[in-house]
Amino acid sequence: MSTITPKMLPATASATNPSLMIGDLLDAGVRMAGDNQIVYRDQSRHDYGRFRERVHQLAHVLTAQGVKAGDVVAVLDWDSHRYLECFFAIPMIGAVLHTVNVRLAPEQVLYTMEHAEDAFVILHEEFISLIEPLADKLPLVRGYLLCQDASQALNTTLPVVGEFESLLSEQPTDYAFPRFDENAVATLFYTTGTTGNPKGVFFTHRQLVLHTLSEASAFQAPGFELLNRDKVYMPITPMFHVHAWGVPYTATLMGATQVYPGRYEPEMLVKLLVSEKVDFSHCVPTLLNMVVSAEAVASKQIDLTGWKVLVGGSALTQSLASKAWELGIDTRSAYGMSETCPLLTAGILPQDIATADFATQLPWRCKAGLPIPLVRLQVVDSNDEPLQQDGKSIGEVRVQAPWLTQAYFKEEARSTELWRDGWLHTGDVGSLDERGFLTISDRIKDVIKTGGEWLSSLELESYISQCPGIAEVAVIGVADDKWGERPAALAVAVDANNPPTVADVQAFLEQFVTQGKLRRWAIPSMIRFVDEIPKTSVGKLDKKRIRSEV
Amino acid sequence: MSTITPKMLPATASATNPSLMIGDLLDAGVRMAGDNQIVYRDQSRHDYGRFRERVHQLAHVLTAQGVKAGDVVAVLDWDSHRYLECFFAIPMIGAVLHTVNVRLAPEQVLYTMEHAEDAFVILHEEFISLIEPLADKLPLVRGYLLCQDASQALNTTLPVVGEFESLLSEQPTDYAFPRFDENAVATLFYTTGTTGNPKGVFFTHRQLVLHTLSEASAFQAPGFELLNRDKVYMPITPMFHVHAWGVPYTATLMGATQVYPGRYEPEMLVKLLVSEKVDFSHCVPTLLNMVVSAEAVASKQIDLTGWKVLVGGSALTQSLASKAWELGIDTRSAYGMSETCPLLTAGILPQDIATADFATQLPWRCKAGLPIPLVRLQVVDSNDEPLQQDGKSIGEVRVQAPWLTQAYFKEEARSTELWRDGWLHTGDVGSLDERGFLTISDRIKDVIKTGGEWLSSLELESYISQCPGIAEVAVIGVADDKWGERPAALAVAVDANNPPTVADVQAFLEQFVTQGKLRRWAIPSMIRFVDEIPKTSVGKLDKKRIRSEV
Repeated sequence: MSTITPKMLPATASATNPSLMIGDLLDAGVRMAGDNQIVYRDQSRHDYGRFRERVHQLAHVLTAQGVKAGDVVAVLDWDSHRYLECFFAIPMIGAVLHTVNVRLAPEQVLYTMEHAEDAFVILHEEFISLIEPLADKLPLVRGYLLCQDASQALNTTLPVVGEFESLLSEQPTDYAFPRFDENAVATLFYTTGTTGNPKGVFFTHRQLVLHTLSEASAFQAPGFELLNRDKVYMPITPMFHVHAWGVPYTATLMGATQVYPGRYEPEMLVKLLVSEKVDFSHCVPTLLNMVVSAEAVASKQIDLTGWKVLVGGSALTQSLASKAWELGIDTRSAYGMSETCPLLTAGILPQDIATADFATQLPWRCKAGLPIPLVRLQVVDSNDEPLQQDGKSIGEVRVQAPWLTQAYFKEEARSTELWRDGWLHTGDVGSLDERGFLTISDRIKDVIKTGGEWLSSLELESYISQCPGIAEVAVIGVADDKWGERPAALAVAVDANNPPTVADVQAFLEQFVTQGKLRRWAIPSMIRFVDEIPKTSVGKLDKKRIRSEV
Repeated sequence: MSTITPKMLPATASATNPSLMIGDLLDAGVRMAGDNQIVYRDQSRHDYGRFRERVHQLAHVLTAQGVKAGDVVAVLDWDSHRYLECFFAIPMIGAVLHTVNVRLAPEQVLYTMEHAEDAFVILHEEFISLIEPLADKLPLVRGYLLCQDASQALNTTLPVVGEFESLLSEQPTDYAFPRFDENAVATLFYTTGTTGNPKGVFFTHRQLVLHTLSEASAFQAPGFELLNRDKVYMPITPMFHVHAWGVPYTATLMGATQVYPGRYEPEMLVKLLVSEKVDFSHCVPTLLNMVVSAEAVASKQIDLTGWKVLVGGSALTQSLASKAWELGIDTRSAYGMSETCPLLTAGILPQDIATADFATQLPWRCKAGLPIPLVRLQVVDSNDEPLQQDGKSIGEVRVQAPWLTQAYFKEEARSTELWRDGWLHTGDVGSLDERGFLTISDRIKDVIKTGGEWLSSLELESYISQCPGIAEVAVIGVADDKWGERPAALAVAVDANNPPTVADVQAFLEQFVTQGKLRRWAIPSMIRFVDEIPKTSVGKLDKKRIRSEV
């Protein structure tokens, strides 16, 4: 903030200058949606009018159970229409939505629920066995609301207050939602790093509304065109993971058709993609790789032509983007992280590239993209000085935007580490090109420092992944007396019985040396084939475990 | 605001939660624009990089002249690239942009400049003769910056500090813009009512950023699709009139090509429409009527196929929309007012209508449309109770949104009249249909109260305008002993020498009575033909003067 004195004028006593509330997104969507629907697996569907009613009913259910403003409400569910309703109803009564990462180990789930001070829990019946043994250690929880896909008697020791649908059906369809301070916390969830306990990040009504408006602007831009009222959306990034990248809010604002697939089962996903004519999804590269490698898809028995997939979490490689393109799947990139709500950049193709052929587009599709409106993004050297936008100078990415977590919940030291001099330090390393496009090379701790140079493990992964016979690869730095560090690769062969030789891979990489893209010393001498590469709970390469396996 | 206590969490000391600043819109546009340009008549063009540099240079020029945060800077110019730069540079240094309505009478211009407390003036040479006689009465003005389209010596008694272009060219292209309270006033301008002095309305950085994001969302929506990065925009609503509906901000956010036509001269407008391949403009119905009636356009000698025109200010009639459509011009409606920044509703066609034929679309194209995101809009009866959404119940339109003027500048009584119980009362009368579409019938004071019923003068104008031989029509209520009021019409004939008879018009209107659209007593007995219908400075029917002429 500056010390200048701009003109401030008083408001009329009877005037209103409304705070930004998540509920406004829902109201806008209801007006826009027409007959568009919210679909849950092959089990239920209803229009936006009913969606709105259910949000109001859920608010009644919660407040009738004593949930009040300021309470933290935990949700444990797979992607569902109910989860979408929780995205709105919980923050709209002034409570905080805690989206529990159900893929964490039980002790970590317990840690997050204790740390968040959850006061009420909404859980799908599948998670009863997870929560029952933990309930004793959660004395703050005043009640459990159960979600069932089919009504059947259930034996549980949990103090269940009732079943979601039956309690909902008893409630009136209009709730007088209050309007309150837009800086009130709306959502809270935990991100797992490579060390220490999960860290809680939180977002306010204001932050989520602004994130949604900016994301909507990017998603509708030419050269991207991922989503609008007339498209069908299905997430394949879980709703507990950074609000499914905020897209359920954005899709709701637009009034788009939304399909929630429940637990991610390959058969159900593919069934819904086809039967609901899904236009747009988002996922991590690993998941897209699973889809395009699936027998039925790869053989074009199932036709996914026209499906647009936004890839984030890790970089989209050119080989994966090409493989998808051959199957008619249109991939784009985006970049962000749990701490950033998450969207920071979007791979909106420039005008001349958007009209070019696929080969020309390919490198652009794999860049992280342009900062979306209201984001300030810099790539800085080790002295925090912005670097040249030359596409080559590599440094840490730091950002400002009106939707960045203002702290890690109850973690002062780690918060101060995240925020330095008013900038959120992403811990990611990348470069900006002449057009302002960001390319992420690595996590700062995954950069391989060899012979005084920085080598991007991600770039090397991208080259190795193009080698015939290689299905997947992870590169890390290993200590080396002479060079400081040297790159080492862990790879999965397409045919485990007949993997390429190390010499094959090295010979393949020579072409990139010839093309000036790779320096010869960057070719790894250590390449080891394994059955599976360790991944984190959200499907990213788990470099910590990989290091221990090399 | 409510009395509930939601969860508020403290921010890390080193964290930033940026305020919403107009400058962020410019930065987003520069990233998106690629080679897109800002065009001024047939005189100049430059890309967004230069646009940004010129904004920074203008900030240097202003501060070098002693303009500081909190100062009000008046601009008198026709639509130009310079004006666009003023839209950004002036608020971005913390000063207030006063867009002077140059079409007002000199004494009104003086009134607004005195009332606004203008401290500095940027004016086009065409307005020297307007301002010279007033300068003595503007002692607060510390300097005048002159804009010239061609450099030539000028004799003026005004204390001119220099010429815009030459001062700009001396300045560095990077200005360290401060970030400050988003509730600081950014813009101020005056709206003329039918009685009393012009009223000042003002908008903050926050309000303009939110208005822009919401307008961008609406403009990119399917069923509207007016503007995006790949389109060419040219305003035909002056930039001094409610920020040209905020579209210069929205076009900048998107990085679209922008064409500024200077003074609205029919020849230049048409030349630019064709040579710059303009995709999108906005204007009042009167102006569109002028264009479609122009010889060269009507004869299709000039082809405007594909031109999209957003019509506001007054309702778009079905006959004008049809006439435009026959020439390939695609019209849409929007609704708002000076007090509302202005956009409140947008005629985004519903999915089923957007794919229907023109005849089906026609009535939808002429409705004011759906409230855009973050707008709450109600139609209320005389007790401020919301009416049924049945497309028939007519009442006053009242609104809430995060971009409504919080007062009339230094006008407490009129501010309190505008704002009642936390709602901005538009003074417009309309109805909402089942799908939530607003139709505006009238100004509340223009509603004709006859025999205890409300008759919409606008609706009657729409029917009469369809009568063969009638070019334009205005309807007002005149006092009547028996009925309270009776409708009277002022009309312009297509052929002034051969106007239709009153009986012709009345006979023509009978069909609407038969169709149940009009009640028989609503057929006016007074219909008078005139050469021209009085209009206000922004081209709306001037019902006050019309009343005096009937």
